[in-house]
Amino acid sequence: MNPPSWTEEFLRANSAYADDFALAGLEARAARAVAVVTCMDTRIEPLGMLGLAPGDAKIMRNAGGRVTGDVLRSLVLAAHMLGVERVVVIHHTDCALANTTDDALRGAAGPGSEDWWFGAMPDPDAALADDVQRVRECPLLADVAVEGFHYDVRTGRLR
Amino acid sequence: MNPPSWTEEFLRANSAYADDFALAGLEARAARAVAVVTCMDTRIEPLGMLGLAPGDAKIMRNAGGRVTGDVLRSLVLAAHMLGVERVVVIHHTDCALANTTDDALRGAAGPGSEDWWFGAMPDPDAALADDVQRVRECPLLADVAVEGFHYDVRTGRLR
Repeated sequence: MNPPSWTEEFLRANSAYADDFALAGLEARAARAVAVVTCMDTRIEPLGMLGLAPGDAKIMRNAGGRVTGDVLRSLVLAAHMLGVERVVVIHHTDCALANTTDDALRGAAGPGSEDWWFGAMPDPDAALADDVQRVRECPLLADVAVEGFHYDVRTGRLR
Repeated sequence: MNPPSWTEEFLRANSAYADDFALAGLEARAARAVAVVTCMDTRIEPLGMLGLAPGDAKIMRNAGGRVTGDVLRSLVLAAHMLGVERVVVIHHTDCALANTTDDALRGAAGPGSEDWWFGAMPDPDAALADDVQRVRECPLLADVAVEGFHYDVRTGRLR
């Protein structure tokens, strides 16, 4: 089956990327022993904002940068198989999940979403603290250090 | 509380990044209406490999680029609130989850992981097809187009 036309431009762009590929020598292990958990947001450059380069870090991203069970699964594999010793959890300003509730998000998602958990953060500071704590309390991540930061999408600055 | 010393270098690097910040004008909505679901792997540049730039796409990453419930949560928010109409699921060669089993991964994760699901992909082609299908079958993503690709970490090429 041929891919639909909307993928053709991605494949063309990928062909140019591969023709000039610069990362062939990288390893699967995280060279800087770090994992970054952050939001799927379009405005976030997880490597650049921390002075990291490809090869340095494992990157987990989802809506909000929440430490879900899926993030814990990924962190456990990263810590036990891929050299990760440190975790940075980064939430950000102007996040669609911040200062709202799951009820409001269910309203946006529409019919059929009544039973969904969306991870809204009515209190962003509390949500970040909770997410850092979830990493700290995971028995399979007992040897991993973790810190949390807020990222300002208008200035590029962490706090 | 002062951050531990291992975070100081990240904060210093971030300060330099913010001093030269170039993304202040970006929007939360995905300018190219696309979401990329891929692996946390150190060798993957989700934007670059598709010819995308910051601002263009929502990026979801976890171990393997598996379409978990957390990824569906993120995609639903991206589709209903943030302009996403198309999804690309990208798995890759030399993935720690490929051509292995959850039992083997539990062995690597060690005691306490007996009940964990790790998302191993004993058959990588079947896993990618399953993940694409999970997006297609999600009732809250009925209006979203989705395609899956394998990425070769040695050549930078999608297939």
